Amino acid sequence: MTDRLAVSQAGDSAFAARQFGGRRGPAPKQDRAARTKSLVLTAAAELFAARGFRHTSVKDVADRVEMTKGAVYFHYPTKEALALAVVEHLYAKWPTLLEETRARKLSPLDTAAEMLDRAALAFRDDVVVQAGARLQLERPHIDAELPPPYVDWTELLTGLLSAALDEGQIKAGTDPAAAARALVAGFFGMQHISDVLEQRADIVERWAEVRDFLFGALRT
Amino acid sequence: MTDRLAVSQAGDSAFAARQFGGRRGPAPKQDRAARTKSLVLTAAAELFAARGFRHTSVKDVADRVEMTKGAVYFHYPTKEALALAVVEHLYAKWPTLLEETRARKLSPLDTAAEMLDRAALAFRDDVVVQAGARLQLERPHIDAELPPPYVDWTELLTGLLSAALDEGQIKAGTDPAAAARALVAGFFGMQHISDVLEQRADIVERWAEVRDFLFGALRT
Repeated sequence: MTDRLAVSQAGDSAFAARQFGGRRGPAPKQDRAARTKSLVLTAAAELFAARGFRHTSVKDVADRVEMTKGAVYFHYPTKEALALAVVEHLYAKWPTLLEETRARKLSPLDTAAEMLDRAALAFRDDVVVQAGARLQLERPHIDAELPPPYVDWTELLTGLLSAALDEGQIKAGTDPAAAARALVAGFFGMQHISDVLEQRADIVERWAEVRDFLFGALRT
Repeated sequence: MTDRLAVSQAGDSAFAARQFGGRRGPAPKQDRAARTKSLVLTAAAELFAARGFRHTSVKDVADRVEMTKGAVYFHYPTKEALALAVVEHLYAKWPTLLEETRARKLSPLDTAAEMLDRAALAFRDDVVVQAGARLQLERPHIDAELPPPYVDWTELLTGLLSAALDEGQIKAGTDPAAAARALVAGFFGMQHISDVLEQRADIVERWAEVRDFLFGALRT
C-alpha cells in the first residue's frame, strides 16, 4: 500500500497548490495554474457528489468556477479525466491521514481505530471523499480505469492488526487479514447505509456502534 | 416489518406462477399469463444484474424472452415498472426465507445467523437478488419509488436479537437495534465488496469472517 499511496500523494498537484496557496504577494504563473486546477477539481467533486457522474457535465463544472469550458479542458481533457482526478485526490488523502495519526504515537490497534474514526468524519465533511465514494459506486458507468476500492484500506488495516497481534493487543489466533476485511466491510456498509438513509447525518453515531462491536470482538 | 412483507408476498403473482408451474396438463389462461409475466421478470432481472438499469431496454427484455415489446408492455407499462417489480420480488423472498428458517425451530440468535447465511447464498446464486442489489445502488438514476433498502432487515434482526437478549444468548446490556445495524452494515459491506472485487465468487467465505466477528462479539 505505502508505495502506491506515496506515489499518488507526490503526484498530486492540487495538494501542492493548496500548500502554497497561503503565500503572500503575486503568485508565479505556475502556482496560479495549480490553484485554478484545484478550484476546478473541487467544483467537479461538489457536482459529482450531489448529482453523480452522468448528470454532471464539463459545462456545469465550468459554470461553477466561472470559466469557459476550454479553460476546464486545458486542465482535464475529458469528464472521465475529472472523475479519475477526484478519485485519485481522495486516495491521496489517506496517507496524509495516516501520517498525522502516526504522529500521535498511539498503539497499532488505537491507530487503526483513530484512522477509521477520522475517515468517518471525512465521509461526513469532505466533498472530495463524498464524490469519490459516489464515483466508485458508479464505476460500471464511467469509462475510466479508476483505482480499485477497498484494497488499500484492507492492506493498511491488515498491517496495523498484525502489529497489534504481535504486541498482544488482539486475541491470539486472530487472522489479521480476515479481521481487516471485516472492519472494511463494516465501515463501508455503515457509511453507505448512512448515506442512503440519512445523507450521512448520523455517520458518527453509526460508526461508533460498528466500531465498538468489531474492536470489542478483537481486543484481548 | 411483518405487515409490509406479508402484503408484498401475497401480492406477488410471479411467486404464485412458479408454485403452479409444475402442474401437468394444459394450463388455464390466467396461469399462462402469470407464467409469462414471471418469465419477463426473470429476463429483466438477468439483464439488470448484468448491465444495470440504464443499459437495459424493454426491447432487450423482449428479445430475451422472444416476445414483442408490446407483450412486455402488457405486463409492465414502463422500464421503471419492471425495475420496481424486480426489487419487490426480491423483498418478497425474505419472508419466505424467514418462514423456512423458523420452521427449523432454532434459537433466536441462530435464526438470525441462519437467515444471513442463506441471504449470502442468495446473493451468490439468485439473479433476482443480484438485480435488486444493483438497482438499489442505482436508485438515484431510476425514476420510481423503490422500497427503502436495509430497513426491513434491520427490523427483523432487531426483533431476533431482542429475543436472544431475553433468553440470555447475547451479552447483557447489548442494544439490539445497534447490534442489528452493525450486522446489516457488515453484511451489506461484505456483499458489496465481494461483488466489486470478485463478482461474489468469495461471498460465502467473506460472510463467514464477518459473521464470526460480529456474532462472536454478541454471544455470551
